[in-house]
Amino acid sequence: MDINGEMIVGRCIVRGREGSLHAVDPALGAEIAPAFGLATLADADTACRLSEQAFDDYRALPLAQRAGFLDTIADRIVDLGAPLIERAHRESRLPLARLEAERGRTVNQLRLFASVVRDGLFLAPTLDQALPQRTPARPDLRLRKIPLGPVAVFGASNFPLAFSVAGGDTASALAAGCPVVVKAHAAHPGTSELVGKALRQAAEECGMPAGVFSMLYDNGHRIGQALVAHPAIKAVGFTGSRRGGLSLAGIAQARREPIPVYAEMSSINPLFLLPGALAADGARLAHGFVESLTLGTGQFCTNPGLVIGLAGKDLDAFRTAAGRALAAKDAGTMLSADIQRAYAGAVARHAGVPGVTVVARGKAEGAGSAAQAALYACDAATYLTTPALEEEIFGPASLVVACNDVGQMLEMARRLEGQLTATVHATPGDQALAARLLPTLERKAGRILFNGFPTSVEVCHAMVHGGPFPATTDGRSTSVGASAIERFLRPVCYQDLPADLLAPELREDNPLGLTRLVDGRLRVAG
Amino acid sequence: MDINGEMIVGRCIVRGREGSLHAVDPALGAEIAPAFGLATLADADTACRLSEQAFDDYRALPLAQRAGFLDTIADRIVDLGAPLIERAHRESRLPLARLEAERGRTVNQLRLFASVVRDGLFLAPTLDQALPQRTPARPDLRLRKIPLGPVAVFGASNFPLAFSVAGGDTASALAAGCPVVVKAHAAHPGTSELVGKALRQAAEECGMPAGVFSMLYDNGHRIGQALVAHPAIKAVGFTGSRRGGLSLAGIAQARREPIPVYAEMSSINPLFLLPGALAADGARLAHGFVESLTLGTGQFCTNPGLVIGLAGKDLDAFRTAAGRALAAKDAGTMLSADIQRAYAGAVARHAGVPGVTVVARGKAEGAGSAAQAALYACDAATYLTTPALEEEIFGPASLVVACNDVGQMLEMARRLEGQLTATVHATPGDQALAARLLPTLERKAGRILFNGFPTSVEVCHAMVHGGPFPATTDGRSTSVGASAIERFLRPVCYQDLPADLLAPELREDNPLGLTRLVDGRLRVAG
Repeated sequence: MDINGEMIVGRCIVRGREGSLHAVDPALGAEIAPAFGLATLADADTACRLSEQAFDDYRALPLAQRAGFLDTIADRIVDLGAPLIERAHRESRLPLARLEAERGRTVNQLRLFASVVRDGLFLAPTLDQALPQRTPARPDLRLRKIPLGPVAVFGASNFPLAFSVAGGDTASALAAGCPVVVKAHAAHPGTSELVGKALRQAAEECGMPAGVFSMLYDNGHRIGQALVAHPAIKAVGFTGSRRGGLSLAGIAQARREPIPVYAEMSSINPLFLLPGALAADGARLAHGFVESLTLGTGQFCTNPGLVIGLAGKDLDAFRTAAGRALAAKDAGTMLSADIQRAYAGAVARHAGVPGVTVVARGKAEGAGSAAQAALYACDAATYLTTPALEEEIFGPASLVVACNDVGQMLEMARRLEGQLTATVHATPGDQALAARLLPTLERKAGRILFNGFPTSVEVCHAMVHGGPFPATTDGRSTSVGASAIERFLRPVCYQDLPADLLAPELREDNPLGLTRLVDGRLRVAG
Repeated sequence: MDINGEMIVGRCIVRGREGSLHAVDPALGAEIAPAFGLATLADADTACRLSEQAFDDYRALPLAQRAGFLDTIADRIVDLGAPLIERAHRESRLPLARLEAERGRTVNQLRLFASVVRDGLFLAPTLDQALPQRTPARPDLRLRKIPLGPVAVFGASNFPLAFSVAGGDTASALAAGCPVVVKAHAAHPGTSELVGKALRQAAEECGMPAGVFSMLYDNGHRIGQALVAHPAIKAVGFTGSRRGGLSLAGIAQARREPIPVYAEMSSINPLFLLPGALAADGARLAHGFVESLTLGTGQFCTNPGLVIGLAGKDLDAFRTAAGRALAAKDAGTMLSADIQRAYAGAVARHAGVPGVTVVARGKAEGAGSAAQAALYACDAATYLTTPALEEEIFGPASLVVACNDVGQMLEMARRLEGQLTATVHATPGDQALAARLLPTLERKAGRILFNGFPTSVEVCHAMVHGGPFPATTDGRSTSVGASAIERFLRPVCYQDLPADLLAPELREDNPLGLTRLVDGRLRVAG
């Protein structure tokens, strides 16, 4: 597959005429060929109108065909082979092995959603039979979930495959029955083009309606804003900054018909190191923490940006060991010069907060967009009176907070903003304190981990990658895992519908063999 | 149970000190004793803080105890006996039989949610076992849904029992594990006090934490706005006007931590009369339509405010028959003078729209807040170019729109705003047209009915009382039926949680015997 700087509008490969952008190698600061033509507002409108036109046809396809489409997208991405990984590496400087793993995740994610589609549980088929003899008579009532409509998806910079053109948002929206219009991330347009063309090819092979997928380039906010404001678009998937997410949510709310925005935005992912764990295993914890913090140059939404422990020699030892490990870490190249600048600024601001000390810095910055890791420390009183310390730093920087006592540790938990994750390190002897922390952490985070580190997100049925605001704009949802499909569905009830008009999932004879709720009881498919 | 003009703040019965209000008999325009003391902002703050304090204790109670609480509320409401119905009748002038049926619905609703709680499916327990031998190893991941937190509920004027103090929003929020703070509707404070005290008594009997329920009076917007803005409140349930719902949604969005608002607002519930049905059965349809339109003086969210048919002699005959039936209808007393004034104003505005003709008026207005039914007609061209005709008229008024052809009828469907319901009257000969309409109606409405009338909403598992904006602020939800519980839940994933800390619904031995999703497969409880 060639990279020609082209977009996809419906089934067509087109070149944008609103200026151009180049990918930039963040290690070299050098542009990479070719130039990518940027979308006009007319392109955005066309893509949205095509998605609207495709919607009813796409959602009416048999589930098996929709699932086959998702599997075929996965196959076509695999077919792209090494050139995809190489291009993604040049555009992001993420290590090749990491990108290969990320491709695996992307493909598995598509296949997981194919299985979710085949399974049909997401349709929530629910039948309450008529009770004509009752007074008043009860009609025949049948519920299923249907897709919301076309979805605008924003590619994320930090996962050029798994949260970009054919990433989790796209996979779950397509699985739900929603056409997708992607605004590709400007930092990896070549990767986007390759994946976009693979997706387009899969759509063609599988006989999908033309508007089921489009992908547009822009180097600013204009196209993204136009997508969110477009009447055809009925939901938005976004992973990025708090400012970006809130801006899109504001546009979505101001529409004539407001629409849901699923923005995954901001999280500092606290680690609570309980006394027993710190005493028993402080050195191993310090090592694991620094590995998690610096993995991928800290560019994970679940990066551990806050460590909380009780003041004392065990926390001192942890801090010293973590500082030593961090000081040995090379400066890593960040995804883009913009991200590196934002990181450097935030790190400098942290260092200037009264009461905050520098525990250690990683090795000095190298060429290009390299980031020096940073570990800070302060006491809980400082943290609790300095709101700026709560702000996410996107990159390999973290803050160790010493609490005077358990009461202050619980207060730290209560004062947290919404988080994607909260982690507890505890021994059996810490169980009582862990049990006190748990109800508070449940109210703050989408995922709670024990004795692990948050920077790996399994794609499975039980995963939640979400959490209360500001972790996301909608804490009732997850953007990773099978439940992500629920973001793009709504229930419809059919009352006394003629049998011939019922969707297969609601027919009396259950031709798809789905598990359904019948008169309040789950009837499991044979 | 006496009516003393008192509120409930936590477990305490208190008298508000911010002035007072009286209920007004809408038929007589006369105040009914006693005076109800209104809440101060301090009362609202106390109620919210108590709900916050109660939250962790309440949600941690065994499901059986939570379900028992809901059943006990139902019992205590039944115990209120005839005085409840009589007071509700004086405050609303809804017929006694209707109020008795509404009490039945309220009580059944509480018992349905008790069964939903016992059943435990709403917890969505999901287990993905650890795969330690995989590279990388997969941790143990378990998901359950937990309640969002305290919920502010607004009593609705038109269902003084079923959508008020212990109505659907309260029942589903309590079922989810959320404490509730109710802003009672000023039109039925005595009814509210009786039900509030019954609920308080049930809470006391069942040993619930003190803040699980509060109820406040106000005669304006101050207390309601304070509840929605309060940091302790995590979701809002509202049934009322579009302006009211949008105002609350705006406050909720402007919070430091935005929260979901489930506002059921505005719907004109179109009826599509297909040619075969109109030809075969026009007179019966006209009769059924007028009965549905004037039931409860048209004060239902699902009142049929729009009728769409093909121009011709069958539609003419329908219109004539409907006009005749409507002209024979007595003026009904509305719920309050405010509602009657709004109705009279809206009816007058409709009558003044160029191209709109009056088909018939009901019998002239009587004493008090009585409303004269009204039936209008226009052609589709007029309707499609006059946005004001799309606005809901709360009361017994409707508009018959004549389309030139099937294309215009489909265009009418496409141009609809979001609706609670859409109804199709069709014979087997109309099936092809019905099949063309259906995909569009699915995108517009929460419930689709065939050959019925929308003004009765069954409380069951398959019901959807919701729909795209502006029917509600959140078309992904329903405010009636078992699924209403989902509005107040969010998923949390537990990674490698020590067995002793797992909630019973996630324990390996499944002590509650719940149906769970295990490694992607549903394991149904024995």
